[in-house]
Amino acid sequence: MAKTSVLTPQAEDFPRWYQDVVAKAELAENGPARGTMVIRPYGWALWEGMQSEVDQRIKAAGAQNAYFPLFIPESYLNKEADHVEGFSPELAVVTHGGGKELEEPLVVRPTSETVINAYFSKWLQSYRDLPLLINQWANVVRWELRPRLFLRTTEFLWQEGHTCHASEQDARDYALRILHEVYEDFMVSVLGVPVLTGLKTENERFAGADQTWTCEAMMGDGKALQMGTSHLLGQNFAKVFETQFLTETGDREYAWQTSWGVSTRMVGGLIMTHGDDAGLRIPPKLAPIQVVVLVVRDEDGAGDKAAALAKQLQAAGVRVELDNRDGQFGRRAVEWELKGVPLRLEVGPRDIAGGTATLVRRDKGEKESTPLDGLPTRIPEMLDEIQKALHRQAQQRQEKRTVDAATVDEAIEGARTGFARIKWDPSGDLEKRLNQESVSVRCLRRPDGSVPLTTDEDDLVAVVARAY
Amino acid sequence: MAKTSVLTPQAEDFPRWYQDVVAKAELAENGPARGTMVIRPYGWALWEGMQSEVDQRIKAAGAQNAYFPLFIPESYLNKEADHVEGFSPELAVVTHGGGKELEEPLVVRPTSETVINAYFSKWLQSYRDLPLLINQWANVVRWELRPRLFLRTTEFLWQEGHTCHASEQDARDYALRILHEVYEDFMVSVLGVPVLTGLKTENERFAGADQTWTCEAMMGDGKALQMGTSHLLGQNFAKVFETQFLTETGDREYAWQTSWGVSTRMVGGLIMTHGDDAGLRIPPKLAPIQVVVLVVRDEDGAGDKAAALAKQLQAAGVRVELDNRDGQFGRRAVEWELKGVPLRLEVGPRDIAGGTATLVRRDKGEKESTPLDGLPTRIPEMLDEIQKALHRQAQQRQEKRTVDAATVDEAIEGARTGFARIKWDPSGDLEKRLNQESVSVRCLRRPDGSVPLTTDEDDLVAVVARAY
Repeated sequence: MAKTSVLTPQAEDFPRWYQDVVAKAELAENGPARGTMVIRPYGWALWEGMQSEVDQRIKAAGAQNAYFPLFIPESYLNKEADHVEGFSPELAVVTHGGGKELEEPLVVRPTSETVINAYFSKWLQSYRDLPLLINQWANVVRWELRPRLFLRTTEFLWQEGHTCHASEQDARDYALRILHEVYEDFMVSVLGVPVLTGLKTENERFAGADQTWTCEAMMGDGKALQMGTSHLLGQNFAKVFETQFLTETGDREYAWQTSWGVSTRMVGGLIMTHGDDAGLRIPPKLAPIQVVVLVVRDEDGAGDKAAALAKQLQAAGVRVELDNRDGQFGRRAVEWELKGVPLRLEVGPRDIAGGTATLVRRDKGEKESTPLDGLPTRIPEMLDEIQKALHRQAQQRQEKRTVDAATVDEAIEGARTGFARIKWDPSGDLEKRLNQESVSVRCLRRPDGSVPLTTDEDDLVAVVARAY
Repeated sequence: MAKTSVLTPQAEDFPRWYQDVVAKAELAENGPARGTMVIRPYGWALWEGMQSEVDQRIKAAGAQNAYFPLFIPESYLNKEADHVEGFSPELAVVTHGGGKELEEPLVVRPTSETVINAYFSKWLQSYRDLPLLINQWANVVRWELRPRLFLRTTEFLWQEGHTCHASEQDARDYALRILHEVYEDFMVSVLGVPVLTGLKTENERFAGADQTWTCEAMMGDGKALQMGTSHLLGQNFAKVFETQFLTETGDREYAWQTSWGVSTRMVGGLIMTHGDDAGLRIPPKLAPIQVVVLVVRDEDGAGDKAAALAKQLQAAGVRVELDNRDGQFGRRAVEWELKGVPLRLEVGPRDIAGGTATLVRRDKGEKESTPLDGLPTRIPEMLDEIQKALHRQAQQRQEKRTVDAATVDEAIEGARTGFARIKWDPSGDLEKRLNQESVSVRCLRRPDGSVPLTTDEDDLVAVVARAY
């Protein structure tokens, strides 16, 4: 197998490995303005795949897509006290437009609760209009002093869902439905990323929310990444924007609301969950290219045979790319490893003479010689196996690197290499001590692993870690 | 048929009719910041359908999607003289970020030629990398003093393609391929909007381009709408951004470039091409809802029968919505007319007793009683007929309202109600006189209707009109 080390090994310097793989696999680059990002075609194809899968699930949960403006009057942001306090240090502000100074500066949206509520308050009349379930795919801007491609960028892309409900119970149920049926299901079954779902502490909550639930994943270096969040906003925004509805009994009540989002950050999570020293490993369900048919040497009809095989696989519903370029076979193989294509089908003159080809699994690096006839059946089976194997490996790492801690010191020690579980202390002392050591509470869970509804529940378990 | 006049009649006040239909069909609203737009779910569904169809065609033309930053350093814009002159009056400028005044202001992209060229110059090495074909779906901002929803908004959504080629010929061929195979094909075959393709005059050209080709459509009031443009940029941006490649003979040459875009403006074009006094008329290929199954009165099993029919149609691949809401039948029928759903299937107790239902074509308003058995075959046939009929009507209007003018005065007269064709005068005098009367040259065409390559060709015909 091809083994040119183009990347810094993970064990040597994980952040450097990440930078290397993002650059060498041609996923993204820094933009010219600080903290911005250029997403290259291969990186975009990953995001496009994520969008499509998440969008299907959002629609299945009954929400409709819409679009709200990029620019928000500064006064809108200022209406909800916690919200403005949380976001004002991160804002980008437009002061000039059309050659003139603006009377009121415009904020580039960091998130759209405020502007969307201004419209909800016009659209929402009575309980018959509820639930009102809206989603948008958009770019948002939060000024970032220590940017890292995909993980923390000044501009990022995401979806943000915003909903109104008739009761707190309905809103909470919907926030949790999104958490599980949209986010967790997508992350586990498509990205192959095992996630811990749980509740954020007050300290880690979204600015303006009553509760925030989260999906947390363990990266290859044992650190946590917040992959997506779903918020119960209560009536906080409804009250400042007068988002009211007429109840069945004829009273006026403020709507109960949720908001929820996942972003291009998931691309970073995918890279750091499955990547190895040879590059990316993309799970087959997401992979823009599931199989690359690689011509070893175009002699004795190998090129034609490879092209025919590629066509045959495409007809069988496999996303396939033919690589019949000139240039050294080894270098081309390294490139496809770097890009994490799940399966490589190597076709050379010797193979086809024997009626076989060589299949190489990216997840294990194992080669097998396989008869050409069976490929349209064999390959989809192997793609399924790879999908499962990637998830299993990540799951095993997460289990192996999670410790049960009896004391804060044990928890801090556990967070050096992974996650620690420790009994939650509602007084806040535990969280303060952890934070002093750059360890944070990723989420609170019930002893049975289910998701708490409020931070006031008894016997909660805190999952703590260092985090991106 | 339902005939409550909720809209200003087109003949009375076309712009007012447009405003009414955008509001009443719940397509969009003004945003809080001047010139911005909120796209509501039904309007978004139209745009989503357009995106999907255009995106497929762009990919079939070999381009790959990517993403470049929203913020562009002001200095980038200033590099190409025509470009900055064209765009500087329309820019939105970010002067503060993260709580501080920025050292260099950032421009919110009005288009991305400059920032993309900065990356092309890094990525492009040799002729082997050519053609380099990139597209992005993005929001852009151009300050708008007289905004109109979808047609002219400060923020709008679009795709912008940017490509590099080895020769001027290759670049021109690609710009024209996009014009015809992507834009014209999509507009004609999906939107049912007949378009005139042609070349822009120097005066109407994109700021920084050598040539601009366009798709121009006639709206219901006889005015023209520019639906999409494709530009030959020559080496103008390549020279200022040093976008060079090594030729086969080992020389360094500047890349030959194109750019091309269509935007949310097409939604406005769709509305004004097909809409009538009862509302929208959406061509079936684009329609988010192709058939609404409307329960007249839920008696004697009509509701159940309607639900079963909706299911059956969905299984036959039709995009169908069941309307079994309470409320007056007439009002509900008016609502679906307003939203332009191509076919209405009315199911009442009397119908089903006779084994029939009533089909109403939105394009003509004609009703027919039709046996329930044949619906899964009959409905897709009728959708095809409606698609063709909408295109044909628009085509006939365009032909009827286009005159051949022998003099400038005749051309100006023709532009009162539609388009005029007049021999092009390369001196510029004709264009100046037309412009004084608020008439513009929409495009130049050859006498046989084909697209000129340069404005210097002999015997060109100018198509002139008033325009949005």
